[in-house]
Amino acid sequence: MAKDKKLVEAITSMEDDFAQWYTDVVTKAELVGYTSVKGCMVIKPAGYAIWENIQHELDRRFKETGVENVYLPMFIPESLLEKEKDHVEGFAPEVAWVTHGGLEPLQERMCVRPTSETLFCDLYSRDVHSHRDLPKIYNQWCSVVRWEKTTRPFLRSREFLWQEGHTAHATAEEAEARTIQMLNVYADFCEEVLAIPVIKGRKTDKEKFAGAEATYTIESLMHDGKALQSGTSHNFGDGFAKAFDIQYADKDNTLKYVHQTSWGMTTRMIGALIMVHGDNSGLVLPPRIAPTQVMVIPIRQDAAGVMDKALEIREALKAADIRVKLDDSEKSPGWKFSEQEMRGIPVRVELGPKDIENGQAVLVRRDTREKYIVSINEIPAKAAELLEEIQANLYNKALAHRNSHTYDVTTYEEFDKTVNQRPGFIRAMWCGCRECEDKIKEDFAATSRCIPFEQEQLSDVCVCCGKPAKKMVYWGRAY
Amino acid sequence: MAKDKKLVEAITSMEDDFAQWYTDVVTKAELVGYTSVKGCMVIKPAGYAIWENIQHELDRRFKETGVENVYLPMFIPESLLEKEKDHVEGFAPEVAWVTHGGLEPLQERMCVRPTSETLFCDLYSRDVHSHRDLPKIYNQWCSVVRWEKTTRPFLRSREFLWQEGHTAHATAEEAEARTIQMLNVYADFCEEVLAIPVIKGRKTDKEKFAGAEATYTIESLMHDGKALQSGTSHNFGDGFAKAFDIQYADKDNTLKYVHQTSWGMTTRMIGALIMVHGDNSGLVLPPRIAPTQVMVIPIRQDAAGVMDKALEIREALKAADIRVKLDDSEKSPGWKFSEQEMRGIPVRVELGPKDIENGQAVLVRRDTREKYIVSINEIPAKAAELLEEIQANLYNKALAHRNSHTYDVTTYEEFDKTVNQRPGFIRAMWCGCRECEDKIKEDFAATSRCIPFEQEQLSDVCVCCGKPAKKMVYWGRAY
Ligand SMILES: [Zn+2]
Ligand SMILES: [Zn+2]
Repeated sequence: MAKDKKLVEAITSMEDDFAQWYTDVVTKAELVGYTSVKGCMVIKPAGYAIWENIQHELDRRFKETGVENVYLPMFIPESLLEKEKDHVEGFAPEVAWVTHGGLEPLQERMCVRPTSETLFCDLYSRDVHSHRDLPKIYNQWCSVVRWEKTTRPFLRSREFLWQEGHTAHATAEEAEARTIQMLNVYADFCEEVLAIPVIKGRKTDKEKFAGAEATYTIESLMHDGKALQSGTSHNFGDGFAKAFDIQYADKDNTLKYVHQTSWGMTTRMIGALIMVHGDNSGLVLPPRIAPTQVMVIPIRQDAAGVMDKALEIREALKAADIRVKLDDSEKSPGWKFSEQEMRGIPVRVELGPKDIENGQAVLVRRDTREKYIVSINEIPAKAAELLEEIQANLYNKALAHRNSHTYDVTTYEEFDKTVNQRPGFIRAMWCGCRECEDKIKEDFAATSRCIPFEQEQLSDVCVCCGKPAKKMVYWGRAY
Repeated sequence: MAKDKKLVEAITSMEDDFAQWYTDVVTKAELVGYTSVKGCMVIKPAGYAIWENIQHELDRRFKETGVENVYLPMFIPESLLEKEKDHVEGFAPEVAWVTHGGLEPLQERMCVRPTSETLFCDLYSRDVHSHRDLPKIYNQWCSVVRWEKTTRPFLRSREFLWQEGHTAHATAEEAEARTIQMLNVYADFCEEVLAIPVIKGRKTDKEKFAGAEATYTIESLMHDGKALQSGTSHNFGDGFAKAFDIQYADKDNTLKYVHQTSWGMTTRMIGALIMVHGDNSGLVLPPRIAPTQVMVIPIRQDAAGVMDKALEIREALKAADIRVKLDDSEKSPGWKFSEQEMRGIPVRVELGPKDIENGQAVLVRRDTREKYIVSINEIPAKAAELLEEIQANLYNKALAHRNSHTYDVTTYEEFDKTVNQRPGFIRAMWCGCRECEDKIKEDFAATSRCIPFEQEQLSDVCVCCGKPAKKMVYWGRAY
């Protein structure tokens, strides 16, 4: 069994070095690979299959709310990017520029989209004329590029995959309702499918999106106590509409500007899955997002009847709508267990000649490693039950972890001590001034994560300046 | 009814000007829109929904053959692109170059992928070590860029969407088998789903892919008699493996080069759907690919009971797994009919107060315009039957059109006359020399479309030079 341990031993333990543990997991679980393209990664089959499931689940939820998918160009001419002042200031320093097409220099250089607000505005300015043309509720699945200096797989890379929804509405109220609606779609998706509890709230002006009137966010807490911005939804008001002249003739025949929103979720959620649920044996995937939910692993697969029974079990699980695979490779069973654990497959079925003699098999949960001896004809029902339990358990564990790593502080000294000694969310009151936010960032490398919708009055004064407090804010160090 | 005709009148008839008819259809059916990005288009909801169905159907077929999806970077460093000589010569003149990241010039410029052979080779050179690592059967869905001078929606644009499969195998035989297997997947998909008959064959050396040992193709014929290359599958032999040093230790412990393939299908198939099935009222979509298969159009929808009944019919059709929509907008019924026809929706249900009184509705086929009076509770069954019939009819019509526009010629004079007077496929014998191919292209602007798998001996001599003929070839002018 010495060999079997090798795969696990190849992972640094997360207590020793969380960053190295993360890198080990993404590479050993074969989610990503390195490339000759600096700052860019390959998303391998095991990683891309997770993204396909995320896409499938989100896309279905989007369409239920009336979203239509489109595809816009990947290039943005410089003059188009520059139309909205805040937006270009936010993005110009981090875009990739195309300057030549074929053998010739371009008349106007173009950037590869870092986000597509400007392109959607270009589209809406052509297609929106009357109130009958509204609302436009479009989304696209694509990749975007931001020229990051330091990169980490899924969390920060020069190119990443995402969806970006862009809508145009007749009224401010409708735009605000859509902004909140999509934030709720993201929150429900994270909690129900990814088993990641989130805090919903609004970004401060300092942290909001370049060009937005209001940015809403869902924030989650990773195992190491760092925060991860997990999805954002922006209300642009009519700022972009004015910059791009997107007007419609209302029922009363007057021209009005549209109100716009945008909202996005990215492949960084795969990073969140790793850092919320993973352990020192590798990835732990919530069943609802796991590409493979059950792995059947035969023991002594060359013995008479073992492979037949294993195939039979696979078919029975498939018939019960469970995503199942059979590992019939030539590796040792121990090695296969280790691989199944590394890849985070929620349940495995172990099956050897003796089990078959007794008409049973062993089911093992990935999350708790509990073992269950189950008669063969009851495997599909038991597996389905375990998958439900694992999904619930992962959510509950993540919630308990977040709760036990959320600290209420009322003084700056407490803030200092907490942020440095107890990684997690800090809840503290804030006066609403940019200066205090800047000071906290400078002193502690912590940022305001959000002004949560669910407010509490922890104290009457700002944790930083002592002036009257306006809002409770979640603070933390973040990815 | 004058108004209702306007939409149709907005389309040029295809007999008058086929190119303008095409442009009118793609814009009036709202498949694409123009943008401020030169040579690039927006794919609007009606167009993107077709692409989603193509993706869904192809992806399912791919996965049944063991394909795994991945995602590779969109950028290719110049040094990587240059590794395979033929390949770089084929693509370098038409790529877009990124020269700056953020505010700084790049040390090495990178192109936006025109295709990803070099990136997959980079990946395989890292990941393939042993025969146990083979085969690799990867695919990615993405957009690619080729700096075209003249562009047409779907057929030729600077950026387009596609899938590109890339595989690596232990033996030449396995690679060849995969190349043909994927060609067959494309051919079956075109014929069964898109209702487009195809000719399967091999490209001549002149027309094969840059860097390939053999390129196989499926060729289809458009309504105007021009050919469209509809899908290609390439066998690279070990050429790329040698350029990128992709070797594996075989069972006998010797190092061997892998054998590779690639294969792709693109959004140009939406152009094919338009040009094979469309008519002077707009788009005609085969039911299996149509995002909406049945449109329910109420007549006098304000009259008591009409909307209730229309909703009931929509729900009944939905329950029968038919993709159905109800047009409850404020437009006139005639305008709605015209829109449904323009968008190519295969069947419409017309339903007014009188119909309801009689317990019936009118079903109208988009392809033949035949009308059927159907009792309301039989609508789902009748609609399903009509959808099957339309699918078959469109395929048969396209096949009959191709057959009646395929001409066998044995002399150069006949070739001349046919290519100029009777647009379509020309079948003629060929000696196998590049010179004859070049001459035919120069004289007639016609290219060899393929050397079909199904050969016939039309004559013993080359149609061009009179030397002994080796193969029958399909020739034609092409998109
Ligand atoms: Zn303060
Ligand atoms: Zn010849």
